[in-house]
Order: sequence, then C-alpha cells, then structure tokens
Amino acid sequence: MSLYAPDLDAFDGPLAVAGPRDVANALRALAMDAVQQANSGHPGMPMGMADVATVLFTRFAKLDPSRPDWPDRDRFVLSAGHGSMLQYAVQHLLGYADLPIEELERFRQLGSKTPGHPEYGHTLGVETTTGPLGQGLATAVGLALAERMMAARFGRGLVDHHTWVIAGDGCLMEGISHEAIDLAGHLRLGRLVVLWDDNAISIDGSTSLSTSTDQLARFRAAGWQVARVDGHDPEAVAAALERARRSQRPSLIACRTIIGYGAPGKQGTEATHGAPLGADEVAAARDRLGWPWPAFEVPEAIRDVWRAATRRGRDAREAWQARLARSPRRADFERTVAGRLPDEVGEALTGLRRRLADEKPALATRKASELALAAINGATDLTVGGSADLTHSNLTITKGLEPVAPGRFAGRYLHYGVREHAMAAVMNGLSLHGGFIPYGGTFLVFSDYARGAIRLSALMGRGVVYVMTHDSIGLGEDGPTHQPVEHLAMLRATPNLAVYRPADAVETVECWELALADRKRPSVLALSRQGLPALRTEADSPNRSARGAYLLRQPEWGRDVTLLATGSEVAIALAAAELLAAEDIAAAVVSMPCWERFEEQDEAYRALVLGNAPRVAVEAAARFGWDRWLGEGGRFVGMPGFGASAPAGALYRHFGITAEAVAEAARGLCHA
Amino acid sequence: MSLYAPDLDAFDGPLAVAGPRDVANALRALAMDAVQQANSGHPGMPMGMADVATVLFTRFAKLDPSRPDWPDRDRFVLSAGHGSMLQYAVQHLLGYADLPIEELERFRQLGSKTPGHPEYGHTLGVETTTGPLGQGLATAVGLALAERMMAARFGRGLVDHHTWVIAGDGCLMEGISHEAIDLAGHLRLGRLVVLWDDNAISIDGSTSLSTSTDQLARFRAAGWQVARVDGHDPEAVAAALERARRSQRPSLIACRTIIGYGAPGKQGTEATHGAPLGADEVAAARDRLGWPWPAFEVPEAIRDVWRAATRRGRDAREAWQARLARSPRRADFERTVAGRLPDEVGEALTGLRRRLADEKPALATRKASELALAAINGATDLTVGGSADLTHSNLTITKGLEPVAPGRFAGRYLHYGVREHAMAAVMNGLSLHGGFIPYGGTFLVFSDYARGAIRLSALMGRGVVYVMTHDSIGLGEDGPTHQPVEHLAMLRATPNLAVYRPADAVETVECWELALADRKRPSVLALSRQGLPALRTEADSPNRSARGAYLLRQPEWGRDVTLLATGSEVAIALAAAELLAAEDIAAAVVSMPCWERFEEQDEAYRALVLGNAPRVAVEAAARFGWDRWLGEGGRFVGMPGFGASAPAGALYRHFGITAEAVAEAARGLCHA
Repeated sequence: MSLYAPDLDAFDGPLAVAGPRDVANALRALAMDAVQQANSGHPGMPMGMADVATVLFTRFAKLDPSRPDWPDRDRFVLSAGHGSMLQYAVQHLLGYADLPIEELERFRQLGSKTPGHPEYGHTLGVETTTGPLGQGLATAVGLALAERMMAARFGRGLVDHHTWVIAGDGCLMEGISHEAIDLAGHLRLGRLVVLWDDNAISIDGSTSLSTSTDQLARFRAAGWQVARVDGHDPEAVAAALERARRSQRPSLIACRTIIGYGAPGKQGTEATHGAPLGADEVAAARDRLGWPWPAFEVPEAIRDVWRAATRRGRDAREAWQARLARSPRRADFERTVAGRLPDEVGEALTGLRRRLADEKPALATRKASELALAAINGATDLTVGGSADLTHSNLTITKGLEPVAPGRFAGRYLHYGVREHAMAAVMNGLSLHGGFIPYGGTFLVFSDYARGAIRLSALMGRGVVYVMTHDSIGLGEDGPTHQPVEHLAMLRATPNLAVYRPADAVETVECWELALADRKRPSVLALSRQGLPALRTEADSPNRSARGAYLLRQPEWGRDVTLLATGSEVAIALAAAELLAAEDIAAAVVSMPCWERFEEQDEAYRALVLGNAPRVAVEAAARFGWDRWLGEGGRFVGMPGFGASAPAGALYRHFGITAEAVAEAARGLCHA
Repeated sequence: MSLYAPDLDAFDGPLAVAGPRDVANALRALAMDAVQQANSGHPGMPMGMADVATVLFTRFAKLDPSRPDWPDRDRFVLSAGHGSMLQYAVQHLLGYADLPIEELERFRQLGSKTPGHPEYGHTLGVETTTGPLGQGLATAVGLALAERMMAARFGRGLVDHHTWVIAGDGCLMEGISHEAIDLAGHLRLGRLVVLWDDNAISIDGSTSLSTSTDQLARFRAAGWQVARVDGHDPEAVAAALERARRSQRPSLIACRTIIGYGAPGKQGTEATHGAPLGADEVAAARDRLGWPWPAFEVPEAIRDVWRAATRRGRDAREAWQARLARSPRRADFERTVAGRLPDEVGEALTGLRRRLADEKPALATRKASELALAAINGATDLTVGGSADLTHSNLTITKGLEPVAPGRFAGRYLHYGVREHAMAAVMNGLSLHGGFIPYGGTFLVFSDYARGAIRLSALMGRGVVYVMTHDSIGLGEDGPTHQPVEHLAMLRATPNLAVYRPADAVETVECWELALADRKRPSVLALSRQGLPALRTEADSPNRSARGAYLLRQPEWGRDVTLLATGSEVAIALAAAELLAAEDIAAAVVSMPCWERFEEQDEAYRALVLGNAPRVAVEAAARFGWDRWLGEGGRFVGMPGFGASAPAGALYRHFGITAEAVAEAARGLCHA
C-alpha cells in the first residue's frame, strides 16, 4: 500500500540525511526552475501542493506511464491549470515518454510539450485542457460519471477507476463549481475526489478579500463527504485519500497549504502565484528546502522513488488486460471505447431522410431532430442524451432512454438541471473519458451560459453535440431575453466548431449525420421552435448539407439575384423567389446550413453556389458575419438589434423578415 | 404595521365570506387569465407565490406607484422572470400608471407593457430585466450593495431601503447564484432578502431529478441568515420577512409552495409551469379558489386592499422628500443619483491625452487605461472600480480607492473574487440602482464567463464599462485557453454594446472618454498586456476615436492600398506601410478602435476613410466579421484558429501577424 515510506527507507546518499520530503521537493525544484527559466509561470501552486501530489501519485493514482491511454486508468485533472508545472514535473518523474527534462526546460516555449496550461491532446497524460478556472472540476464530474456509466455497462472487472482533481480557491469561487458539485453530489459520484489547495491566497491577495464561505459546509450541503487536512502532512493526506477512495459519495479534501512553500521570502503570499520567484529567492528556497542540486537536476535515488510508484499502476494494467482478454465482452468493450458508430446508425438516418422526403411533413426542426435522435438512439448505445431542464422543449429524450439517477448509472439520459455550463463541461468529460457520444440541449440563447465549456469542446476537438432549440425570434412570446440574435455569430466565430442551422426536416437529419460523423469537432444544431414546411422532397438525395451550402432553387435560365438563407428563413427566401419569378426576376436560393463546411469547399464549388448575381441574405439574426457571403453591395434582411415579446408571426412582420422584404431588397439590387 | 388583516376586517360583500385569501387570489386569477388569453406563458409560479407576494407587497415593500423612480424606494427583483404575470398583476393592483387592466389583457403581445419576461425601461417598476435564470438574483446583489454604498455616503436619512428578490429553483441551480450568494454573504448585505419559491418543481419535473442540495445549509455556509416557511401561510411569511428585515446578514426565506396553487387538476406539477392551464382547468381553479368573478375582473373591495397598501410607501416617500429638502447634501445627492459626471473628468482626460501625445511613452494599453482611471477617479467619485481577482493585471485600482469590505461600504473598489459572471451582474445592479458608474476588469477571454450578464447590460442599455485586458495572443505564454480569438467578434455582434480596441495610450484615453460619455450603452475596452509604441503624437487633437475609425496615415498622393487595423496591430500596419513606401506603394492606414461608432457615421465619412483602393485588415483575432470592411477581394491577416503557448513575439511570428505579412498581402492586391 504505502510506497512512500518503505522506498525512502532504502535510500542512501543525501536523502538519508534529507528525509522523505525530498521526494516532494523534486516537484518544487522543477517547478520553480522551469518558471524561472521561462521567466513566466506560476510556481506558488506546485510548491504548495507538492506534498499532496506526491502522496496522490506515489500511493494512490492508478496510472501506467507506458500506456497513458489505458482505458481503466485513473483520471487526473489539474483544475487549477495554472499550476501546470506540478503536473509536468510529476509526469516527468513518473516517466511519461514525451516529458524528458529537456521539455521541462522548454516550459512555455513554442512547440514544447509543456505549454502554460495543460492541453489535452498535446501532452500525454493530460486528460482535459484546463486553465479557465472551474472547468477542470466540472469536466471531472463528466469523467467520473462516465466511469460509473461504463462500470454499469461492463462491470467492475473492466471498469473500476477514480477521478482525482486538484482545484484551487478560484475554481471554487467560479459559478460552474456550484453546478458541478451540485450534480456530482446528487448523482453520488463516489469515485470523484477533489483535493482543494486551500492556501487562502488568490491573485488579489488573501481570499478573505472576497469570500467568507465555509467550503466544507458548502460541499456537505451538496451531499459530499468532506475532510480537512494539513496539506504538508503526508500521512494525514494519505488517510484522507484512503477514506475518500472508499466513499460512496464524492469527496472534498481541503488541504491546508502554504502557497510557494519553501520560498522563504515569499511563501504564503500572492507574490508566488503567477511570477518567477527570481534568482535570489530560488537560491534561498534551495537552502530552505535542503535541495542542493542544480537547476533541473534530480538525484537518481529520488527518481527511483517516483519510478517505483508506477509499478502499482503497471501491475494493475497488466491484470486488467488479462481480464479483458478473457472477457466475453471484449469486442463490445473495445468498440465502445473506440466510439465506433455501427453502420445501423447511418442506415437508420438515411431511411428516415427518405421517409421525410417522401411524406413531406411540416415540422419544427427541433421535432425533426427528435425523430433523428429516435433513429440514432435506437441504432447505437454510444449516445448519451440530456438537457439543462428543457427536455420537452429541446426534444432530446427518445423512447427507451432511461435517466441516470443517484447511484443508478445504467441509463442513457441526463437531467442536467438548470446548469448549462456544467452540462457542456460534463459532456466534455463524458467524451474525453471514452465510451460515449454525448449530446445535450438548451435554448440557443443560453449558449451564453455554456460558452466557457463550449470553447473547450472546440479547443480540445471533442465531437459533442449541442442541441440548441428556439433559435430565433421564431420562439415568440418569451421575448428578447430568450431570443438569440448574436449567438449564431458568436458560435460561428469560434474556431473548430461546426454550427448547423437546418431549414427543414430532411436537412435536420443530414446535419445530425454530419455532427455524428465529426468525432474531432463539436457541433451546434440551431433548431426552430416553430413548424417549418418541407423543402427537401427529392427522392434518394445525397447529404446535401455536407458541403455546407447548396443551390436549393435554381432558375432555368441564368439568375438575376441569389438569395442566401439558413434555417427557418430558407422558406422565406423560397417564397421571395416565387414573388420575384412573377416579375420575371430569376432568383436562385442557396440554403447554407453550415458555414464552416461551405468554407472548407474548394473555390470552384463556392463560386458555383454563390454565383455572380447580386446577393440578398436573410436570417432572423444579426448581420454580423454575413458580409463574408454577401459580396459587394449585397443586402441583408434580418434583425437590427434585440427582439421583442410577441407571437412569432407578429415578430417576423414587425422586424420585416418576410418574403416581401426579401423580394424588395432583391428588386433594389436588380434594378440598381 | 399589518395592513393585511385590518383592511380585510373592514370588507363587506363577497369577501366577508371568502376571507383574506382573496387578496392573493386576485393575483392568481389575473395570472391564469392573462396566460390563457395570450395562449402562452407561465401560470404556475404566480399562482404558487401569490400568497408570499401579497404579504411582501401589502405589508413590507416600500413603494410608491405614483413615483416609481423615487430613489429611496425598495427594489423588487423577480429573478424567476418567467413568472412575470405575478409582477404585472401586483403592479396593476398597486396602481402603476402604465398597467391598466387592458395591458394585462395584452400580455405577451407586440408593444404591450406586459412582455413575456419583465423588461427594464419598458414597464414602470421593473428594476432589472430578468428571464435568464439567476441573473435577477445576482443583479439584486448589486442593487443591495449600491444601497449600502449610498447609505455610507449620504447616511440613513436619505438612503435606507431593502432589495427583495423572488427566485426559483432554477435560479439556485445556475452557477451565477453561487457567485452572487458567496459575494453577498461575504459583504454582509443585510438589506438583501431572497424569497425562494421552493416548489420542488422544475421544467423536467421534480427537482429531485437533478438536485439533492440542502439549500438552507448552502446559504448558511455562505454567511446568510436562513428560514423555511409554508409559503401559503401569510403570517409565517410575514414573521420571516420581519426577521429578515432586521438581519445584519442577507436572508434566504425558503417558501414551501405548491406550483400552480389552486388549479385542482394540475397544481403541484410541471404542467402548470410554462403553458396555459386550459379553459376547463381555469374554470375549475375559479371554483377551487372561490373566485367567481369573470376573467380580468377584480372586485373593488379587493382592489381597495391593494391600493391601501401603497399608503405606507407614499407616506415614507413624502417623509423622505421632506428630509431631502432639509438636507445640506441635497444637491450632491441629486447630482450623484443622476450620475452626472463633473466637467473635471473631461478636463482631466483631455489634459492626460495632451501629456501622452507630448511625452510619447510606449505603454501597454492596459497601463494607459490605468492612467486614464487615475484621472477619472480623481475627478469624480461616481466611479466604482473592481476586478474579478485580476486587479494588478487589469490595472483597475488607482491611488486612494479603498476597497469595499464586509460591513464597510465607504470604499470605491470591489474585490469581486474569481467571479466574472457575478461581477458583470453586480455592475448592472450598481448601475441600475443609480449613484454609480461601475467598471470592472477581467481578461478578455473570460468575457465568456460573463456573457450572460454582459448581454443584459446591452439589452438594458446600462453604461457599465468592462475593462478587458490581455486582449490577444500578445498575452503570450498563458496559451490558447487565455488567448481570445473569437471574443471581439462575439462582443461586436452583440447589439447595443460598444467594443473599443485602442492602439496606443492616446487612443486609450479617447476610448475611456467615449465609454464614460455613453450612459445608455455598455462598453468593452479590449486592452493589451504588452507594451505598444506611441502612435498618436499630434498636439491638441480632437477625440479621433469618436468616429470609430479614422485615417491615421495618409499617403501624400492617392493610395494604392488601405490597411485596416485595431489595437496592437495598428503599429504593425504602420510598419507595413513603411515597408511598402520603400517600394513606392502608397498605403493608407486606418485605425478602427470602435466598429460600432464607425458604423454610425454617415456614408460619406465611411467612404472617405475606407477609400477605393484594395484593403488589407490586420487583427490578432479571428477574421469573422472583418468582411464588413474588407470589400471585394480584400485580404485578412490574423488568427487562423486558436493560439498557442509561447512568448508574444514568437507567437506573432508563428501566426504570421507581422509587418512583412501585411506588406506581402498588400503587394498581392496591388499587383493583382
């Protein structure tokens, strides 16, 4: 059990004199040296939490650095991501292949494996990108939830691991922490353990400047097991971790620490938080810590302790692999972890598209999405649905999806509560863990609340799907607080995020096909509350949304004007084209369900679709971004500002988003 | 004290039989009737909270409907904004001039005074726009804080009121609620009282689907006084309100209620939350409630009780006005409430601009902002500064600004903690209360976290100022999680929000002048971490940023190309122009500190600035939105996606945002 003490007993050389704290001091030294060398970074947290991290990684965390992606490994999340040198130092000493000492020496340099904050997909062993405070904690809830859900599917023999989090004061101040701990406590995620770096210092100074909350009472109120320990007392930390490991409820361990521990002139103050200690203070810290070795040098004896700590993980991994090899569920497990969708999903969606093209129902696109989800969820069990308390508005639940409930993890539907931000972060966690393709719903306007985590979906390249309904003034009476105007622009401006706004039922199914196929990019489906006519009624069509935009209506001879539109406004553009046709003005209509995909097409295709005629765009949203497609002198019909409270039809008329207005704009261009 | 019971004793007619509950049932009837008539809306909350609201408004709230903007009135915030009919019904019965019964009959119709969610500036007595859950609660913290701060300045004789909030389960689930209650508890805002509609129902069904938190324990952990009452027992509610009114700490009163109380077939279920009850159920509710009167009809005897309740408020207002008339601080108080900036502010800023133009210091624009703030804060005491725990990064504090601390409200600086969302909402509250011009800082990338409340600043037209530093990859080593790329687009796309990105010290001061002058529109100042050269060095310049964009460099004879840039990239554009000049390519350089203001200029000015030559834009951000200014075939030099962790100079080179790259793009256009 305790690797820490026995291995230290076997030491000789300086350590025999210096004592076991040197094992942790290796982290402190590497952190302060790397920050000093970079002349940038955060030494305070790594130095303060070195003792806690040493206990966690040498005695508890189940990791095998030679197989950093082993499915049943423990997950570690550094929610206080600015302390990245703590994680890099640990992983260097544990022997992760991509972190030789040279990479620590290149801390925060271009192209190094040691960026300022831990980046998923960039450095082995980094389970999620952190830095924006609170995100790691909330994502860890998703990781821990995924573990329970996978265990419910495959049993403890194949899935049995913990999620360990180091969080700081800032993480616990951010609003997302509330959503995360509330949900984790509710679901009784006993495998989640949060080590709070309770150093009572934030950037502005003492945390007493801005908070008086009794965090233990707060977490207890949310159903967590809580403990408080001296973060510089390894045995106390170990005892708390041991208790947490056996808990049926998520655990918070408040680790009382001294920020910048060991830097004699600055420890315990915000001066150690986000700046190099300075050469003199680094030297003084070496003295104080009894760490005589030069920068970036760690004695072999200490390295041995760290390496030895990986034995437990390697043994566990090998035993697990033997179990997997014998398991009758092996193929199923591997397919699930790989996230490979069965062919049946594509077939079901193609079938649905054909049926919709044939039956031509007038449907809200949220309703068409519900039909798509029924097809998807019936053909695979990889998908996990959910909504931020708008299930029957987002239409995200389908027949047979049982909810996940406290202590019951076999279900496939999450009642996330009124917690958009945590929903997005938990979806990131579910996706990062492996085994699930999460989708979750809210109103498009509340993408505002989820922004922080949506950005991380994009930055990490996770193929989660945001089902965002009520996507314009078409939602009607709820008024401007609920009517997205700038949100399509906000989301389209976000790198590596595909924003879909389908025009009818068939396009909605197409967009779902594309979102599911995109396993390295998150998708937003912007869906209408209101019913929309069937526009795509041709038999056996290929997925036309795949190219992002396409000619939906093409005049027989040339075109005088091109009308561009998305979603609910495509029908308006078509009606405008009819009005214009009556005046012998030939209008092409382009449906643009996904700008990002259209941007990815070659120039020739884009030119073919956009044509040379003057253009009018119509979208019940802000103009911002549309000039990309309008060309010189193009017109835009859309929202001039915020919406209003009234029935949808009245609003479209009030804001002049009508076929008549589009036709009038087109006439203006054609007669110019 | 108790208006409720005595006035009822005096009733005759049906009420003598029906009993005092009819006073509350008037609210229930109006709510269900209006929702039924609109065929849209939320009857459940008003019917559930009618008893609580009746006690609050007839016995506690200090309001005078004839003077809805009286400065020392109590503030009421319906954080559960979907229950708007509760507020409209109350204000109708209290006699607010803009809410005759006809307006209730036009609930949720275009142009009515009764939109789906309460809208500030639209309906008298609505103190803040609500609907997005949790916003009202957090804004109320700002209102309650403003009261204490004004009281600290002017004394209890002039400032002595309460802030009452009705919040729902959803408000308490949202992350922003944590930030808000943490801060309110810390600061000991005893004048803040939250009535929680504890009906245990959210849209998806029972709240037990998604939360198990002990809310009373949670609020207690944050330093609140808490109580639990039967929300249908007026005397219990009154006793709790009386205790809360006297508390030195903020109070939570959990009001156990039955959602949709009185609708016999649906009450207690989510069916009453967000849809009309239906004609049969409305009729059945009339029976159950003993409310025989037709839709929208309220007997005079009941109206009398409500009208009588305003006597207390009118008396209080008249007494207050007498005190104000006698007060030696009267002029000062009125000037403060009006938010009129003294001329000294403009003079100080003009002087600073002159000095900077003369001295030509190379400064980060965040540093220039600090200088501007020193000038502003020295010339007026209307400004209230703050930061979300990045004070010495945002440079938002200036000499002599004392922090506000628990129970000590004379200060002018707020340590908001790591709470960007609450900071924005609290600034909205400070601004709405009157008496303050709040500004607050965070990193630009964390505008993500504050989005929900920034949008409300814009929707409500409040002139708060967001000081958002570290505005691009120029922040360097912190990496992509901290480098805004899409945020300028997100903010520029938001209606009624002015986004400034000044290029040097002089422009920064100009932008501060403009932000302060805009009292009906919020401003974002996007400021550099890194030092920037002085570009604006002409003596006695007018405020050139006022027109949003202007020619900073104009070639002597004509122009071959126009280079557009903002902020830190303007210097790059100027350097590119020099490179091009050496090749006899005449490049104009346009600095565009504020797109919104440029958009507001007349066509002639815009054409003059933009010219007819081909254009290259450079901004260390996403291209999204720039096509508005690029014209046909224009080029963009900027960020192709997310950033990276490295020193700033290395990043600019890595991403090709250099004078050479801009010059090369310009050459391509000129030789095309």
